[in-house]
Amino acid sequence: MYTAVDYQFMALALAEAQKALYLPNPNPRVGCVIVKDAQVIGRGFTQRVGGSHAEVQALADAKAKGFDPAGATIYVTLEPCNHTGKTPPCVDAFIAAKPAKLIAAMLDPNPIVNGKGLERLKAAGIQVDCGLMASEAQALNPGFISRMTRGLPWVRMKIAASLDGKTALPNGKSQWITGPLARADGHHWRAQACAILTGMGTVKEDDPTLNVRDVKTDRQPSKIIVDSKLETPLNAKVLKGLDEASVILVCASLDSQEAQEKAKAFENLGVQVVSMSNFAGKVDLPKLFAYLAQEHHMNEIHIEAGCKLNGSLLRENCVDELLLYYAPFFVGEGIGMANVSSLAELNDRQDWQIVDQTMFAPDLRIRLIKN
Amino acid sequence: MYTAVDYQFMALALAEAQKALYLPNPNPRVGCVIVKDAQVIGRGFTQRVGGSHAEVQALADAKAKGFDPAGATIYVTLEPCNHTGKTPPCVDAFIAAKPAKLIAAMLDPNPIVNGKGLERLKAAGIQVDCGLMASEAQALNPGFISRMTRGLPWVRMKIAASLDGKTALPNGKSQWITGPLARADGHHWRAQACAILTGMGTVKEDDPTLNVRDVKTDRQPSKIIVDSKLETPLNAKVLKGLDEASVILVCASLDSQEAQEKAKAFENLGVQVVSMSNFAGKVDLPKLFAYLAQEHHMNEIHIEAGCKLNGSLLRENCVDELLLYYAPFFVGEGIGMANVSSLAELNDRQDWQIVDQTMFAPDLRIRLIKN
Repeated sequence: MYTAVDYQFMALALAEAQKALYLPNPNPRVGCVIVKDAQVIGRGFTQRVGGSHAEVQALADAKAKGFDPAGATIYVTLEPCNHTGKTPPCVDAFIAAKPAKLIAAMLDPNPIVNGKGLERLKAAGIQVDCGLMASEAQALNPGFISRMTRGLPWVRMKIAASLDGKTALPNGKSQWITGPLARADGHHWRAQACAILTGMGTVKEDDPTLNVRDVKTDRQPSKIIVDSKLETPLNAKVLKGLDEASVILVCASLDSQEAQEKAKAFENLGVQVVSMSNFAGKVDLPKLFAYLAQEHHMNEIHIEAGCKLNGSLLRENCVDELLLYYAPFFVGEGIGMANVSSLAELNDRQDWQIVDQTMFAPDLRIRLIKN
Repeated sequence: MYTAVDYQFMALALAEAQKALYLPNPNPRVGCVIVKDAQVIGRGFTQRVGGSHAEVQALADAKAKGFDPAGATIYVTLEPCNHTGKTPPCVDAFIAAKPAKLIAAMLDPNPIVNGKGLERLKAAGIQVDCGLMASEAQALNPGFISRMTRGLPWVRMKIAASLDGKTALPNGKSQWITGPLARADGHHWRAQACAILTGMGTVKEDDPTLNVRDVKTDRQPSKIIVDSKLETPLNAKVLKGLDEASVILVCASLDSQEAQEKAKAFENLGVQVVSMSNFAGKVDLPKLFAYLAQEHHMNEIHIEAGCKLNGSLLRENCVDELLLYYAPFFVGEGIGMANVSSLAELNDRQDWQIVDQTMFAPDLRIRLIKN
């Protein structure tokens, strides 16, 4: 049984993990708090790739403050790793530090850890518990969990529309449907993603930069452009700033010489060009996401695309979460949210579940996950 | 200055008024609580038209329980009337009862009362206060206030749509976009209205009954059908049950003999037929609402119409409040919410304000008022 005090300290560890919200890629966001005599003696959270894990940070923090973690209780939002990645196993650092007890919020979904980290701690005589505030801890890492358990990133689609579901006027004008608060919130979600994905159509029409602006972060997400025929203009804004954020251009085929020449021009800019085609000669979207998880270790993908690509992604079941912003007016004739195939019967629909609704005045954001 | 106890008792009076939510037409919803020695000795709320007012109910309640209201404090959600309508003035009943004090939440917006009721009480030596929980009291009677101050009813438009703003499939199928909880909530709003308004198109396509079903009420709202050319089928369900709910058919013109003959057929069923035309030969919608307020003393109108009539009503500035229900799925191609004229610029839009958002799982209702 967990005590009220356990909840308090695990909440602190979760708050530490939150500090890594915009940071890690491909690492999970983890927070750790070391408690001795009812006092926090060390805390830490995941650092940038190659930097130390939350657990090691917390131990170093305790040491720097002159505390000895021997006999302490450790609260950590994810089971400590028992394998050597870019850093040595956290489990070894803990065993050396001799805490009395460790409480993890959840097991590491990584199949090469998944319980083995806790077993090693137990074997070393440390009292171990797992499951405190598990759902809060899971919510921190939908992408990491998805990648470890499904081999796919967590895919979030953002759409800003009018009350009647229009994202732009018939003439394409869409700046801005929503107000500054909603747009800032959009940047908060961009900043959490490993990559921002869009389509060639949006690049051509809106020429967006697709970077993170309204929130403070020292990492820019990668950019992925779905572009069957490599029609992205070479001077598109999204191709600038390649030192900050890599760009992957995804086409359907590189078989023709023309395609290879086009690809060469992009590669000369530093853009990576890949091809994956489905039976219809379009980009194979499900395969793309598997590729992004497996080859690029991407946890969360943020989609801001147009009606057509949105429709394809929804039809092909690639989307896990929707972020819909509704601005409080009607547009009438205009461009729709997602060109999904028309239903013949209402029963054919794909149901979602509204998990929260939040005002970013004057706009409303609703967040949905697949039912 | 009001005390915490004053707030408590006024909240009780407001709760009394809530009991009249589905009842009065054209009367305002009023609640009254009589307090003596910190004890509620009588309570009452507005009865059906011709029945007694909340104030008289509360006095009778006190009397029936053997209490004497002399020296008591009266909490009433609306200034008591000083004129004889279908019942004698409440002010006289209070003066006879000799309370020490009366607190009203708001003045009666009826220009023939508007402060005069309180003045008479004051002149009779009763201590009078006004304004406690005024905004809560106003929220009870948007229609009555609107009619008294603008000569217009409060017009509420309900639309149920998919996430992408579609109310029906391209084939017209729309039963049911939203789930049972949202539909029941819709009936709760229907029940508050003096009349439910729709268009001939909806009557022809969906053949709705437009009555109140999912909530308990002993009054059915009237029905109003906007039908420029009197094309409503004589056997439409909306024309049944005329003993319970009157029907007004609104056409653009009764000048031709054909129109007069059609009107005659409706009138033989007991339907009232009126005509009011605008410059374009369509029903003059703003005039219609003025007519409903002035000739029929209607406070609140509930609209459930199709894309075309919704668009006209919005364009012509007839709508005060929107009740939008969003079901958590995409429809793709389908029928829109409101055929408003397309905007040339986003700045040309008519802005609304989202005043609340409530889940009726799995659907979301958002309520908006004009900005």
